[in-house]
Amino acid sequence: MAENTFDIAVIGGDGIGPEVVAEARKVLDAALASESAEFTYTEYSLGAEHWLTTGETLTEETLQALRGHDAILFGAVGADPLDTRVPSGIIERELLLGLRFNLDHCVNLRPTRSYPGVVSPLRGVDEANPIDFLVVREGTEGPYAGNGGLLRRGTDAEIATEVSVNTAYGVRRVVEDAFHRAQARDKHLTLVHKNNVLTYSGDLWTRTTAAVAESFPEVRWDYLHVDAATIHMVSNPQRFDVIVTDNLFGDILTDLAPAITGGIGLAASASINTAGTAPSMFEPVHGSAPDIAGKAIADPTAAVLSAVLMLDHLGLGDAAARVETAVHAQLNQWAQDGASGLSTSQRGDAFVARLNR
Amino acid sequence: MAENTFDIAVIGGDGIGPEVVAEARKVLDAALASESAEFTYTEYSLGAEHWLTTGETLTEETLQALRGHDAILFGAVGADPLDTRVPSGIIERELLLGLRFNLDHCVNLRPTRSYPGVVSPLRGVDEANPIDFLVVREGTEGPYAGNGGLLRRGTDAEIATEVSVNTAYGVRRVVEDAFHRAQARDKHLTLVHKNNVLTYSGDLWTRTTAAVAESFPEVRWDYLHVDAATIHMVSNPQRFDVIVTDNLFGDILTDLAPAITGGIGLAASASINTAGTAPSMFEPVHGSAPDIAGKAIADPTAAVLSAVLMLDHLGLGDAAARVETAVHAQLNQWAQDGASGLSTSQRGDAFVARLNR
Ligand SMILES: CC(C)[C@H](C(=O)O)[C@@H](O)C(=O)O
Ligand SMILES: CC(C)[C@H](C(=O)O)[C@@H](O)C(=O)O
Repeated sequence: MAENTFDIAVIGGDGIGPEVVAEARKVLDAALASESAEFTYTEYSLGAEHWLTTGETLTEETLQALRGHDAILFGAVGADPLDTRVPSGIIERELLLGLRFNLDHCVNLRPTRSYPGVVSPLRGVDEANPIDFLVVREGTEGPYAGNGGLLRRGTDAEIATEVSVNTAYGVRRVVEDAFHRAQARDKHLTLVHKNNVLTYSGDLWTRTTAAVAESFPEVRWDYLHVDAATIHMVSNPQRFDVIVTDNLFGDILTDLAPAITGGIGLAASASINTAGTAPSMFEPVHGSAPDIAGKAIADPTAAVLSAVLMLDHLGLGDAAARVETAVHAQLNQWAQDGASGLSTSQRGDAFVARLNR
Repeated sequence: MAENTFDIAVIGGDGIGPEVVAEARKVLDAALASESAEFTYTEYSLGAEHWLTTGETLTEETLQALRGHDAILFGAVGADPLDTRVPSGIIERELLLGLRFNLDHCVNLRPTRSYPGVVSPLRGVDEANPIDFLVVREGTEGPYAGNGGLLRRGTDAEIATEVSVNTAYGVRRVVEDAFHRAQARDKHLTLVHKNNVLTYSGDLWTRTTAAVAESFPEVRWDYLHVDAATIHMVSNPQRFDVIVTDNLFGDILTDLAPAITGGIGLAASASINTAGTAPSMFEPVHGSAPDIAGKAIADPTAAVLSAVLMLDHLGLGDAAARVETAVHAQLNQWAQDGASGLSTSQRGDAFVARLNR
């Protein structure tokens, strides 16, 4: 009988989402077999398909139900871009951002690393010089606050505004989280902003980072403008350990980051409620890939690595480490033997077999 | 006797700025020797050094004088980052952005291309698969408007805002300019924005692009979110021809863009007043590089290529083409023979010699 039972909400979503999440569950169950912990799963139907059937993106009722869980395991959402029945952006905003804002996912976590067998598009990155850093992106304010407006739409005198909203409360909790993570890694934090132009928010971010730094004397921190940060990403990505940044800069950098590893299909992410007032969410960075959905060929690795982040977040660090090791070992083997032609579930099974060795 | 005389303002600036601008002038004069045009130059002392001496960044008087010129040839400004006497950001904001906003430089132009002998950090970019695109960045509004504020600074209840201001007037003139340039190139325009999140400004940008597109039936255009655009930049930069984007996204992409060519030290830029109500400005993207200033080893190529953009802008397309060809031929030769050990003026002289062949 398990000591701890964790109540997991599962949102498979659209396209390959449910396919990869199924493999993540398989691996989770295998990992927990030797632990005094157990997961129960409740499936929620959400996403573009759900919207087409019900006209609903995220109801208050669903949100309430989700709040009762210990964590959310998420697949991917989004219709085929050619499907004109789904208005552009609605699923992203009302469901994805809806969850992030309503569940107060203030820390958006994106680990970025080289994987065996995955060739980086960068000449300077190889097995001897791998990429391994973590982006801690703010998730609930900044330019994502949805503040703004349109005046005189469609006229020559039209004006559109977007207000980036940044609070001491919101910035501080993210910067603190980032310092904690840097402390547990290579003790190097880089604040990325554009404080020479965005002087108000830049001042708040820079001052907050300097203040929090005082509690982390072992962590050395530096600052990069966001434009310069993109140069470092392609010329010397090995310089990064932990990056902390605002919501929009984080969005940009966390697409660039997995791209430079060559493994955008392998990237995992977590949306963390740091106060524990609502469940955190774990999701592969890749999308619903409608073009390969239903063919059982999707790679479940990113979903499995997102499950690793979930195990870690739930305090099951031991199981997390075992799964991560198994995934790396298996990717290593595939890098040597080749893995083409493997189905989604064959890949999941291979991770489980590796875990049970 | 020259038919046309152009009255050029020269701002050498700090560090290597004056050194590279001197070579650009040399090449300009050589290029004009066979044209019915002539340049006169007036030097302006501006930048960090000037600020240290006078306490002034950009006076109304200097601005007035600059307005009288046909164009501005700019070197680089900025103090040694270790020089604590110069408050961070002041030269950038009051001088660089001061010129851009006061002279209504609405189009910030950044051509990005592979150069002979310059190895891209990307494996997928080589002589057979070169990079060649143009970023048309909005220069006078968006998040750079300087709108925003700080409330309750330094308290737990602090809030900082930044307002991105976008007008139909401001967006339209940039989008039109970009379509014109796409029409003259490979007839492919990519709008980059984040219209799924920044819905107000995104709506204005997307609607404006669609509307202007109707006057350019030969130009095919597409749309990318800024995060996805960074992925394409590292995975398939050859897909781009002309990119049009807002001020902040443009800032980020135009540092990433030269970085992926490997030739950030060779990148040229132009800040264009499209209405012709004030002089446009031409400047290398590289900075003042205080560490190598005064050693006569700075590479003047980016300044010379910025002068090419100036020739083109002033209607001297023929001279522009001749200089560009000469620079490429010379870079090609250096790529074969090696160019290490060449001084700044030896490089300038080599371009001139090539031009006079
Ligand atoms: C889909 C979109 C709203 C989202 C974002 O901009 O945050 C995505 O790009 C991401 O990074 O998770
Ligand atoms: C120095 C800075 C204000 C400037 C900008 O942000 O525009 C620079 O990065 C640029 O791209 O010209």
